[in-house]
Amino acid sequence: MRISTLSVGDELVCGQITDTNAGVIAEALLYQGLRVQRHMSVGDSEPDIIEALLELARNSDAIVVTGGLGPTADDLTARAAARATGRRLVLNDHAKAHVRDMSGRLASLMVCPLNDKQAMIPSKTTLIPNPAGTACGFYLMNNGCFMFFLPGVPSEMIRMLKDSVLPFLAERATRRRSIRMERLNVFGPCEAEVDEMLGGVGRPDQGLFLGICVTFPWMRITLRAEADSDDKAAELLAPAVKIVQERLHEYVFSRGEVTIDEAVAALFIQQGMTLALAESCTGGMIAQRITSISGSSRYFLEGAVTYSNAAKTRQVGVDAALLVEKGAVSSEVGSAMAKGVRRSAGSDLGLAVTGIAGPDGGSDEKPVGTVFISLSAPDGCWTKRFQFSGTRDEIRTITAWTALDWLRRYLLQRAVA
Amino acid sequence: MRISTLSVGDELVCGQITDTNAGVIAEALLYQGLRVQRHMSVGDSEPDIIEALLELARNSDAIVVTGGLGPTADDLTARAAARATGRRLVLNDHAKAHVRDMSGRLASLMVCPLNDKQAMIPSKTTLIPNPAGTACGFYLMNNGCFMFFLPGVPSEMIRMLKDSVLPFLAERATRRRSIRMERLNVFGPCEAEVDEMLGGVGRPDQGLFLGICVTFPWMRITLRAEADSDDKAAELLAPAVKIVQERLHEYVFSRGEVTIDEAVAALFIQQGMTLALAESCTGGMIAQRITSISGSSRYFLEGAVTYSNAAKTRQVGVDAALLVEKGAVSSEVGSAMAKGVRRSAGSDLGLAVTGIAGPDGGSDEKPVGTVFISLSAPDGCWTKRFQFSGTRDEIRTITAWTALDWLRRYLLQRAVA
Repeated sequence: MRISTLSVGDELVCGQITDTNAGVIAEALLYQGLRVQRHMSVGDSEPDIIEALLELARNSDAIVVTGGLGPTADDLTARAAARATGRRLVLNDHAKAHVRDMSGRLASLMVCPLNDKQAMIPSKTTLIPNPAGTACGFYLMNNGCFMFFLPGVPSEMIRMLKDSVLPFLAERATRRRSIRMERLNVFGPCEAEVDEMLGGVGRPDQGLFLGICVTFPWMRITLRAEADSDDKAAELLAPAVKIVQERLHEYVFSRGEVTIDEAVAALFIQQGMTLALAESCTGGMIAQRITSISGSSRYFLEGAVTYSNAAKTRQVGVDAALLVEKGAVSSEVGSAMAKGVRRSAGSDLGLAVTGIAGPDGGSDEKPVGTVFISLSAPDGCWTKRFQFSGTRDEIRTITAWTALDWLRRYLLQRAVA
Repeated sequence: MRISTLSVGDELVCGQITDTNAGVIAEALLYQGLRVQRHMSVGDSEPDIIEALLELARNSDAIVVTGGLGPTADDLTARAAARATGRRLVLNDHAKAHVRDMSGRLASLMVCPLNDKQAMIPSKTTLIPNPAGTACGFYLMNNGCFMFFLPGVPSEMIRMLKDSVLPFLAERATRRRSIRMERLNVFGPCEAEVDEMLGGVGRPDQGLFLGICVTFPWMRITLRAEADSDDKAAELLAPAVKIVQERLHEYVFSRGEVTIDEAVAALFIQQGMTLALAESCTGGMIAQRITSISGSSRYFLEGAVTYSNAAKTRQVGVDAALLVEKGAVSSEVGSAMAKGVRRSAGSDLGLAVTGIAGPDGGSDEKPVGTVFISLSAPDGCWTKRFQFSGTRDEIRTITAWTALDWLRRYLLQRAVA
């Protein structure tokens, strides 16, 4: 079944808001074994909507349209749907009753006042219930193509999609492929390295697809198996996941939706260890990520954002003479920070970063992107110099990721530096 | 000039990532008085890319394509572009030199090793320089339609768009509407309040458009004036901007692309004051935002992420008895943290937050979302209890925003609490 999506709204083609509906619909369909072949967005222009509908209909068995069903003058989707499919726009009694009912119930939520416009629906259509808003959805069949029209408000749209559209499509999709997916999240190697390590894993001819999605500074490996039955898809997927897991081994920090922050948190709880942080160039970014996890107070004791030299000395006990001799961005100061914060907090692990995030402050000897990461633990202290590049934000982000990855590796009893 | 955009990538039509490029391009064009008529996304499928290119080309004078120019096997855009336009795919010497050059320069950033695939470009095209990555962009003219091909990496894409594509299009666009836009960024009131305060400001019949875009926890007010000439558009816009500025006054923290972090940074520099932070529930989020600004070391001395009670006592001198008596989340402890960190750091301002970010840890008396913010300054100490709601991340985020807004208000000599 060839499926397209169409998002309608000036705000989408003017860049004022990012279209999240398209992705939500695509993913929801994918989990039903259905795939979006193409997505289109157009503004609040009747000719543009009509043209898009007709064009998509030529190559689609179904179109899911969102947006433009509201009460205001620039909501033109219902009228465009009628014109595109040779229908009249008529006052739908059920829709009218729904709009009146919902307007009353939602009055306190400051929704739009009573408006029959939202009850003007193309003739010969079936309404799609909207339990959460005034806009009525509807669907119709035109020249062998099902067209579904849903409001653009994400919370209303997703509910109507799941309640009405997905079951409808799933039932009618003959020769629907069973789909199984697995995601592995990877930090460390670059895209080309991963691509090389995973050579031959994807077998599109057999229905096994490998996707590498880079989301700086990590990447997500998606394996998708498509087959005639759920069992076959699962059978196809399992060995491929095992191969990816084996080949990328130490770089895989989690599966599915689990973030590196969550992966590190789980390891701290599992190992029963505690942590204190001393951050200079990341300025609290690592602490912020560690504490983004509920329950982090079980293992995270404290952080020191030692931005000034005085703070490095007073907060984590770095020798003032060492700062003068070696400079704040140095291996010696990095390890003194890690040891110092571990000692003063009384934690099992002390992790420190000091570096030059830029864009100013670099020198020939220590250019922008020079970062020292240091981990002090009961069994030793590891410090390493990194040379990152990129914007200030990128350098800080990859530093925080590398530090989190060190914690993950240490807690898994793997080498860090 | 009719312009379309096309985003290529399986991850876009599978819902794994949200397509932000489309919006960025649309907005950048709008600032040039150019409007995107339609946007399309397709997966990494050569037939789908070809079909989309041909279909868009039928109704467009220009197409801006992003994505699918990478080094891996699923990057198919260059080949599809060649096929769609009847060109051969050839090894481009300039592109090859560029890939080699960039691979060397970016090696430390973990980008891809040498790969000639990225230098395979359709014949009879012009390269678009990419100063930030290995992928070469290119453009070609086919049946009266300009097609621009850019990498999908947002930072590379936007730079190439602004350096090369926009000037090219702006020069060739005849009958371009003059567009002037202004953005005011607002924190404090809710959308309905802003909507009411700005009633009557937008006059679409006169070419003056008002947009309110909510981006938790702040909001962007966009005023857009469209007219026949730049002068007329500017004349239309100026009084409207003045009205919005007057009506929203103290809630407007910046204009244009200036973030609240940058607005606060500018005020610190201007006022010559220094800052120290003590964070509990935000766990470093405020420090991280303050230090995200280059040059923040001029006014930011240090931060203490006092997650444990012991840290509150040792790092910022909160009386251990006070912690027992009032609890860590209390007005008294909040102000003790603010005063304590100000004293120990020797800064002009000390700002502290303590609260319950949830989802656990709430009580009847202090439910999840209870947050105390405290600001200690030479002329006094202000502490206020807030009751926020939302997820852990939302509560932490709005706490950080409110704290930053306090700093902004204090530095502007406005009331904070």
